[in-house]
Formats: sequence, structure tokens, C-alpha cells
Amino acid sequence: MNTRKLVVIGGDAAGMTAASKIRREQPEREIIVFERGNHTSYSACGMPYYIGGQVESEEQLIARKPEVFRKKQHIDVRIRHEVIEIDPKNKRVKVRNLDEEKEFWEPWDDLLIATGASPIVPNMENIEASGIFALSTLQSGMDVFNFLKEKKPAKAVIVGGGYIGMEMAEAFLSRSMDVTLIDMAPQLMATLDKDMADLILEYMTEQQVKVFLKEKLVKFEKNSGGSIKSVITDKQTIPADIVILGMGVKPNAELAARAGIKLGASDAIQVNKRLETSEPHIWAAGDCAESFHLVTQKQVHIALGTVANKHGLVAGINISGGNAEFPGVLGTAITKFKELEISRTGLSEKEAKELGVEYEAKTITSVSPAGYYIGSEKIHVKLVVNKQTQRILGGQIVGFKGAAKRIDTIATAISAGLTAQQMVDLDLAYAPPFSGVWDPVQIAARKFI
Amino acid sequence: MNTRKLVVIGGDAAGMTAASKIRREQPEREIIVFERGNHTSYSACGMPYYIGGQVESEEQLIARKPEVFRKKQHIDVRIRHEVIEIDPKNKRVKVRNLDEEKEFWEPWDDLLIATGASPIVPNMENIEASGIFALSTLQSGMDVFNFLKEKKPAKAVIVGGGYIGMEMAEAFLSRSMDVTLIDMAPQLMATLDKDMADLILEYMTEQQVKVFLKEKLVKFEKNSGGSIKSVITDKQTIPADIVILGMGVKPNAELAARAGIKLGASDAIQVNKRLETSEPHIWAAGDCAESFHLVTQKQVHIALGTVANKHGLVAGINISGGNAEFPGVLGTAITKFKELEISRTGLSEKEAKELGVEYEAKTITSVSPAGYYIGSEKIHVKLVVNKQTQRILGGQIVGFKGAAKRIDTIATAISAGLTAQQMVDLDLAYAPPFSGVWDPVQIAARKFI
Repeated sequence: MNTRKLVVIGGDAAGMTAASKIRREQPEREIIVFERGNHTSYSACGMPYYIGGQVESEEQLIARKPEVFRKKQHIDVRIRHEVIEIDPKNKRVKVRNLDEEKEFWEPWDDLLIATGASPIVPNMENIEASGIFALSTLQSGMDVFNFLKEKKPAKAVIVGGGYIGMEMAEAFLSRSMDVTLIDMAPQLMATLDKDMADLILEYMTEQQVKVFLKEKLVKFEKNSGGSIKSVITDKQTIPADIVILGMGVKPNAELAARAGIKLGASDAIQVNKRLETSEPHIWAAGDCAESFHLVTQKQVHIALGTVANKHGLVAGINISGGNAEFPGVLGTAITKFKELEISRTGLSEKEAKELGVEYEAKTITSVSPAGYYIGSEKIHVKLVVNKQTQRILGGQIVGFKGAAKRIDTIATAISAGLTAQQMVDLDLAYAPPFSGVWDPVQIAARKFI
Repeated sequence: MNTRKLVVIGGDAAGMTAASKIRREQPEREIIVFERGNHTSYSACGMPYYIGGQVESEEQLIARKPEVFRKKQHIDVRIRHEVIEIDPKNKRVKVRNLDEEKEFWEPWDDLLIATGASPIVPNMENIEASGIFALSTLQSGMDVFNFLKEKKPAKAVIVGGGYIGMEMAEAFLSRSMDVTLIDMAPQLMATLDKDMADLILEYMTEQQVKVFLKEKLVKFEKNSGGSIKSVITDKQTIPADIVILGMGVKPNAELAARAGIKLGASDAIQVNKRLETSEPHIWAAGDCAESFHLVTQKQVHIALGTVANKHGLVAGINISGGNAEFPGVLGTAITKFKELEISRTGLSEKEAKELGVEYEAKTITSVSPAGYYIGSEKIHVKLVVNKQTQRILGGQIVGFKGAAKRIDTIATAISAGLTAQQMVDLDLAYAPPFSGVWDPVQIAARKFI
């Protein structure tokens, strides 16, 4: 029987996946989870759809509540408890009970840091105005939802054209609002190449989103009552009743850093493949930790639910005495804006160039379903291939119904080290309602043959 | 300049893909294609959708017409010309001009046999009744379409619960017809395992298709005018205004066999990986030829458009002096019945058992999109894994919107020799409109860990 006491900091995907795995392996072990928010194990990725009305209630976004963890898994989850200090030497954490305003020390034998990431919020004039939101916790999603319900804002401004930007633009459009999106970059979706991102720009514009690129946020203006009045950029003043900040996230790693735990890529907590930090018996997992990138072979910071879940599982196996290694990431991601589906994996052309890899990149436009089948729409596939080895390094897809999930075929091919020829050779599924006889990912691969 | 004269027998996917490839590589070479039907390069797979109304006209199913091949590619395509004898010794074929009823010998230096496959039509009382159809050539699809338009049949009987059976059942339902499907097997879709096929049975029954399994076709009954009246099985008499035979296909290999060319798997033309037959300078490609199976490492006969296209490309490269090998098949296939999507790849559990492979098989039921997202529906994934090596041997998927194309991820994993653990480790795409945080194929793979 393992009597080592485990403390977990953070009660969302990584933390609770690890805690649950450890409980299955070690039924008797003491496990305490401190979560500073009100909720555990919720789908942050689902929040834009909850706000847009594709999810019936915020309750549905919660996979498992604290009381269920306590009763069914005997995991001592304490919400509204913030860990404010880690003391590695004495193996203890200082915890603040946010409701009772009291602090106490909790000892541990093993510690898992799963503190997540936070949206980047610029230090800027009137940033505190009511109606300016960044999506982070489930509570923040509920705040946006309630604001929309109560204030019925007509004009939305979104700062940042990434995943949150796409998804919130769709959510606001579905509420018949006027939507403006600004980004300081010359393109939407920084993780895609500009040629692919421009396809998204075209569709968004068609769908009546006013997109302003190369435009920098300068400050906000508020009404006398303290609510947001307008967004001021380096080029114009945009009236706003609600503002969403989708400017990226940063890992919540200060707590670890203050305790002398080393940080790595993008200031996320440095971990090895077993998710061990620089301090013995301290582990980190999820959005606060770095990940190994399979193509670049470097540590990167990628804050995604898929990664957090895998991190949690690997940390859980190792903390409970097993031996697992995090398999690495490709930065695979997918989203949609209305009917347009968008996905990417591995290296973009831009990234390949920055890394100095000798690559070839090709883009094809095909159709899905088959061209003669009703509802056939364009699908664009871009592949990046290593010029020497012909191995596939990355892919991007922009298209309609069923287009984007094809990125999984490319991600699998990259992981397995397949060449463009080997992708052409794959026996993929064909029937007219789904594609032409050559799947679009293979049509793209054939360009390299 | 290569002056070797090429004759191709058959003007559909394999033959025309090869001819086009050779033309690109060897602009000056003489290429003659003899096609006994009226059309070239059409999508046979699209016919059920043309009949069902998802394709506007039969013209749309034709990728390229004979006159286009002649004018743009200088390929001498002769429709309504049937090759009735191959003379390997003297390197010539005897050709019958079906319009002028005259025969002639045509010499060749290289010969490609791409004669396709034909539907199995049982030798049975009243099989000649009008209103009994089997889908083979584009003309046969047009015949069904015209019959429906002119006779407006109310009651359809489909013999055979495979791909054609599924697709024609959908087509008839979309025309508000009464649909009965019989199959002598104890399950639908023989290429799937019974547990997966039973999910299809349940849905088809819900959708008002009367399905009778373990029921054997005995004969037909016709009206005094010669039209179909009923289908008689070993258990009942089923009134019918139209009958579709979907009882499988057999390779058109008699012509080759009569010339002494060796047959192999399922009486298809024996070929090596370069698609050379047993006779020098004679090649075979497409539905008339066998294919190498990547998992069983045996020759099999799989008549599918994807395979025919790849065969054609490989034969074309080799005939024009290059060196390509057919990469092999997994038997990947996909279809849908109304909203239900169905796919398979590699070995089914049944096939693994028959082969004496030590395997494990597991099936999971998950959802897609994410459970909390509107329109979330069940998806069933079955994986077959080698018990010793843990490598994935096969997969089957039954589910709704976007479910079935996920088979490509499994097919890629099988081709690359991935284990169940390596599939769990893949960085696949996740966002709530597409799936839960673990893709269903990974949830299935996790069952083996």
C-alpha cells in the first residue's frame, strides 16, 4: 500500500485526469486537490458554444463535480482553495481558503502542479471597464453568457483572430450581433500560413464579420457608468458593447517559479518526458507545462485540452509508480467558423522556414463530397514535406462539411514518419458522399511525386 | 521515343488512368483503348446517388468522354468495341465492332487488360423478367433511372445486403418507395462483423426498410407482360415492381484465362506487384485483377474504385518504362445508409479468426460531436489488435455525421504498423463540434492498454 500523500494544484483536465488515474491504481492513497475556482473538470473548449447556444447549459460542460470526486472516488477536492506558495524543501504548500480568508500549510509526499494557463490581458487604459472579457475559467464563460442575457449588447469587438476569435465571432453572429474582429498580425490564425488564413478571411468577410488586420489595440474608452464604450486602435475607434480578448494564453507558472522550479519553453514549467519538474517529487501537467514537439524535437508550450488530458494520464501513471512517457505533440488543432472548418498539424511553412528545414510546400484545392454529389464544396489542403527525406512535416486544411477532421490522417502519417509517396499509397476510404476517389489529402501528397 | 504500340482493353478507371499516365510520360506513343460499352471513365460508385437524385444527371458521372481522350490526349478510344480474343503468342487481340458487327485483329507490343468486374447474376427462373437489374456499367444505371421514371414502381426488392444494397435502399426510400431487402447471410454487410452489422440492421428497420436475413432467393415470378411480379425466397413470396441484384461481383477474367493467362485469388487475373501477368508484356489492372493485402500478406480480389485507380497508375508507370509497385490494400471501404455512416478497414474479427491470428477485439460506443454539443450522436468503433505485437489489424465504424471517415486514421495506423498504444499517443484534432477530447478511435485503442 502506497501511503505517500499526494497534493494536486488545479482541478481541471490535467489535474483530475491524473488524480483519477492514481485513484484507480492506488485505491488507498490520500489525494487532495486544491482548486481556486468554483468548478472541476469542465470543458473550457465548449464555452464559446455554450455562449453561442449550441450547448444547453453550463452544467453540461462539467464532466464531473467536486462532490462526485469526493463521494465516488474518495478524492478530497477542495474548491475555492488557492495554493499561494510551494515549499519544496519542507514538502508542503501554503493554501488560502478563499471563502474563509484563512491560510494553512498542507504537507505532501508527491506534488502535481496543474495550474493551467490564463488569457493574456493587456495592461491598458480602461481595461477594467465592464463588458471586457477574456475566456478562462467556466465562471468567465458564465459571466459572458449572463452579460449577453442581461445587457443584450448589439456590437461585439473581438481582439485576436485565433481559435477563440473564430469561435466567439460565430457565437456572436448566432445571436444576430454586429461583429468586428481586429488583429495586429497581417493574417488571421497565426498557427496557419497566410495563404490558408486568407481563405478564412474571405469567408468571414462574406459572413459579415468586419475584420481589420495589421491593426493594433491601443486602449479602451468607457461610458460614465463604467461600461465599455469603444475600442481604440492605432487606426480607428470602434464602438463596442462587449469586448472579447482572444490574445493568446500564458502558462500559470509563477507559483512554480517562485519555488525555484525551472521554467522552460515560453515560460511554461520545464518537464521531462515523464512530466517530472526540476525538483524531486514535483510533477507538472497540462497548460502550465511544456511539451515535446515530435517534428521540431524541441520543447514547446501548447495549451490544448487533448494535451492536458494526455499529460494528466502520463503524470498519473508515473505518480502511481508506473512508467509512462508523454508521446509528444504535433500542435494538431481544429476549429470551425460557421460552416467553414479549419485544421492544422505539424509544421506550417512559416515554421519550417524559421527552423531552417529544407522543405517543399504545396497546396491543392479539391472537393468534398465528390464533385457531382449535391452539396459538394471546395476543400483546400496544404502539405509541408521535408525536401531530403520526403517525409511529411505538416498539414493544413480549410474546407466545409467533413473537411477538417481529415487532419488526423496527416497527423498519423507525420507521427509514423510517412513520406508523401507512402501517403499516396494509403488505402483510404472512398464513396461519393464523402470524397472523390482520391481523398484530398492524397491529392495533395501526389503533388510531391 | 518509345514506338511500342499499346492496346488497353477496357475504358474505365484502371484502363484510362493507365492510358493517361502513359500519354503524359510518352507523348508520341500509339495508344488504342477498346471499350465494349458506350462510356469511358465514369463513376460506377456514383450510380446509386444518381438514381436516388443526389446527382443531377448521368453526364455528371462521366469524368472524361471518349472524344476528349481522343482530341486532348491523342488516345485512340474506341467505344462499342469488344475484345473477344487475346493472342499472346502473336501479340494481337481480336476485336468485334459491336455496331458494324465486324471483327478484326489488332496487333500490340504491350497489352493492358482492364476489363473490370461484373455483378453476379444467378441462373434462375425468370431472371430475364423486365424490372430486374444489376448495377454494372453506366448504361445499367441509366436503365434503372429510366425504368423508375417511366414505370414509377412502388415496391422494390433488393437482393443482397452489401454496399449496393445499402445505397440502393437509400435511393429507393428517397423516392418514397416501399423497400424490402433480403440476404441469405445471418447479417448485413458481410465485410463487417455481426455485432457492427446489427447496428445497421436496427437503423434500417427504424427507417422502414423490411429486412429479411437468412433468407435465400429461389426464383422470380413475372407478369404475363414479362415484367417482374414477385421475388420468391425459401420462406415467402415478396411482391416486387423492381428488383436490384446486389449479390457481389466477379472479375471479368475469362478472356485472359482463355488466352492462358494465369488466374489467382477469387479467379481474378494473377499479377505481381508491378501488375504484370503470367505472360510477358501483358499487364492487368483494376477490378479484373488481384491485389496484395497488407495485413494478410496474401493476394485478394477487391473491386473498388480506389484500388482500380491506384492499379491504373502503377501499371501506367511501369508500361511507360518506370518502376512502381502496387502498395497493397487493406480493404478499406465506406458507405452510408441515410444518416448512418459505415466504414471498415483491415481485418474484421471474423477474418482474424479464420486466418488463425491471435487477436483481441474490442468495441466502444462514444459520441460525436462532444456529448454536450447539439446533434451529438452515438458512434461505435471496433478495433482488432494482434495479441502478441499489439499492432492494429483492423477497424470498423458505425455512426452518424462525420463518423465513418475516421476509418482513414485507422487505415493509416495499420499501414504504418502502429500499436494500440501508439494510436492512443497520436496527437489527433479535437474541438467540441467534432468530438470529445479523446477521439473515438483513441477511446477504442485505450481499451487495449
